[in-house]
Amino acid sequence: MKLATIKDGSRDGQLVVVARDLSSAHYATGICCHLQQALDDWNFVSPQLQDLYDTLNQGKARHAFPFDPRQFMAPLPRAYQWADGSAYINHVELVRAARDATVPESFYTDPLMYQGGSDDFLGPCDDVVCPSEDMGIDFEAEIAVVTADVPMGATPERALDGVRLVMLANDVSLRNLVPGDLAKGFGFLQSKPATAFSPVAVTLDELGDAWQKGRVHLTLQSSWNGRKVGMCEAGPDMSFHFGQLIAHLCKTRNVRAGSIIGSGTVSNKGVQAQGGMQWPKGYSCIAEKRAIETIQDGKPSTQYMRYGDTIRIEMKGRDGQDIFGAIDQQIAPPR
Amino acid sequence: MKLATIKDGSRDGQLVVVARDLSSAHYATGICCHLQQALDDWNFVSPQLQDLYDTLNQGKARHAFPFDPRQFMAPLPRAYQWADGSAYINHVELVRAARDATVPESFYTDPLMYQGGSDDFLGPCDDVVCPSEDMGIDFEAEIAVVTADVPMGATPERALDGVRLVMLANDVSLRNLVPGDLAKGFGFLQSKPATAFSPVAVTLDELGDAWQKGRVHLTLQSSWNGRKVGMCEAGPDMSFHFGQLIAHLCKTRNVRAGSIIGSGTVSNKGVQAQGGMQWPKGYSCIAEKRAIETIQDGKPSTQYMRYGDTIRIEMKGRDGQDIFGAIDQQIAPPR
Repeated sequence: MKLATIKDGSRDGQLVVVARDLSSAHYATGICCHLQQALDDWNFVSPQLQDLYDTLNQGKARHAFPFDPRQFMAPLPRAYQWADGSAYINHVELVRAARDATVPESFYTDPLMYQGGSDDFLGPCDDVVCPSEDMGIDFEAEIAVVTADVPMGATPERALDGVRLVMLANDVSLRNLVPGDLAKGFGFLQSKPATAFSPVAVTLDELGDAWQKGRVHLTLQSSWNGRKVGMCEAGPDMSFHFGQLIAHLCKTRNVRAGSIIGSGTVSNKGVQAQGGMQWPKGYSCIAEKRAIETIQDGKPSTQYMRYGDTIRIEMKGRDGQDIFGAIDQQIAPPR
Repeated sequence: MKLATIKDGSRDGQLVVVARDLSSAHYATGICCHLQQALDDWNFVSPQLQDLYDTLNQGKARHAFPFDPRQFMAPLPRAYQWADGSAYINHVELVRAARDATVPESFYTDPLMYQGGSDDFLGPCDDVVCPSEDMGIDFEAEIAVVTADVPMGATPERALDGVRLVMLANDVSLRNLVPGDLAKGFGFLQSKPATAFSPVAVTLDELGDAWQKGRVHLTLQSSWNGRKVGMCEAGPDMSFHFGQLIAHLCKTRNVRAGSIIGSGTVSNKGVQAQGGMQWPKGYSCIAEKRAIETIQDGKPSTQYMRYGDTIRIEMKGRDGQDIFGAIDQQIAPPR
């Protein structure tokens, strides 16, 4: 099932079911107004949504309309929790190696995760408004899941059962504000502005056997100003699966329905080729590209994003079809 | 106006108006079902709530019922944002002095703030369920405000206009997990379990002239196992007022209606008396008491909380009347 939230001028928009091929959509408001409501009462609401989805896919839904991602908000336009992991240790290794820092041994067994603002998400085609180009504007292409209720102390296996939906995220970062936030130790308060999500959130069955043990075994594509810079494999190098990330979060508290958990920047290990290390899959954030440049050349040569730059993030299924619709945003100054 | 949320078995409860003297309450669901809805559309909804409040205070509300805090959830049982400052630098100074660390100069101009989980708040009389007594269970008595929409880049003065409601918070901390969280620099993910709030949230006019320039000039009382351990003045030693805290949060992003911003542990400077430093106002968290003991005796002697311990947090107005109702909780093991 594919779910989305259409803009209607309100804070929470209206729930819509989207056809598998992303060609058309249908209001679900006869069943349920908002995605959070569906998550709050999933076992009752989701079968009704599934019926509408099936009818839509059969071309029999009476009030279907063409699906245009620009009309959409984030599937959850605001959420009660957004906790973003850093599950691809390779990313952490590269960034640390670039500043001659080692990775503590504990990072391989104990996930990194920060709590982000969830009161004001961006739609997939909304501008990324940043106060200044000097802040080091970066995209971060990620996978994110939306959870059911998961009780305090749940095991990773139990927590994995709590995954309801999958979507893509652009966890925008202001790199030049990161050192200040890190030095305080209180988390990324100013260096992580509003996060954007893909137009569509999908249930696990939509991923077929690409969803394996809490990981999405597909390629995450990132295009910066129209140039494909990342074709990263999201599965193999994900050091902690989503069940482990959720279990980490609920070690000391309950996680409630509608919580969003991010994977962190998708990142692949380098390979030995032509007498040196290469990263043929590209990158899912500029900071990683700059880290690689620093390791190889002593300094970074790729600059961060400027106003007017565009970033497109998408993922195709094994059938070559777009799964989530694309995040397609432009960087913009404050109005 | 005094607002609260009564338990009804649902995730968001039902909005209730509470009489000024906390003797009675009245369902506001004829006007608006949930506090978040009122905050989303405050200018339209709040005058209607005010009318009901006035009628209730005049003893003329037809369906008033006795107010019992044990029936109540947090005013916002879940919220789209919970960002907690550390606005009383004296607290930071004491805790750092106890471990022979200095306070960086920047801490006096740039607030500390972390993002906490907001998907699962505790009601004022709900048990504080902790996985283990060995985690260093501590209370933290704080003031918290609920905001309107505040745009990115707002000045502290503008941000201060965004304060809609004030309440009390018990920002429970698991002290023995803090060093691990701090070492990662990603914020307090596991060391800050669910936060509890006072039964009632009040508009600024309820504080009269005790609300001055973004600070509450009243005494925050904390009683641990029935013993009054803190009578802390919340006004004078608050290094950053709420407008400054909100402006800090919205430096790089919009803050949306219903965001909760905390003051951090209320703390008062020590005074010279009887040939040494004394802290006659007591403490709003055990960690601060232990810091003082460490500074004076070389080691802490007060232990953290055990299962069965109680914590009561409340605040009286200048007329001696209880303003918010009391937070009154017991520490409990997982069921």
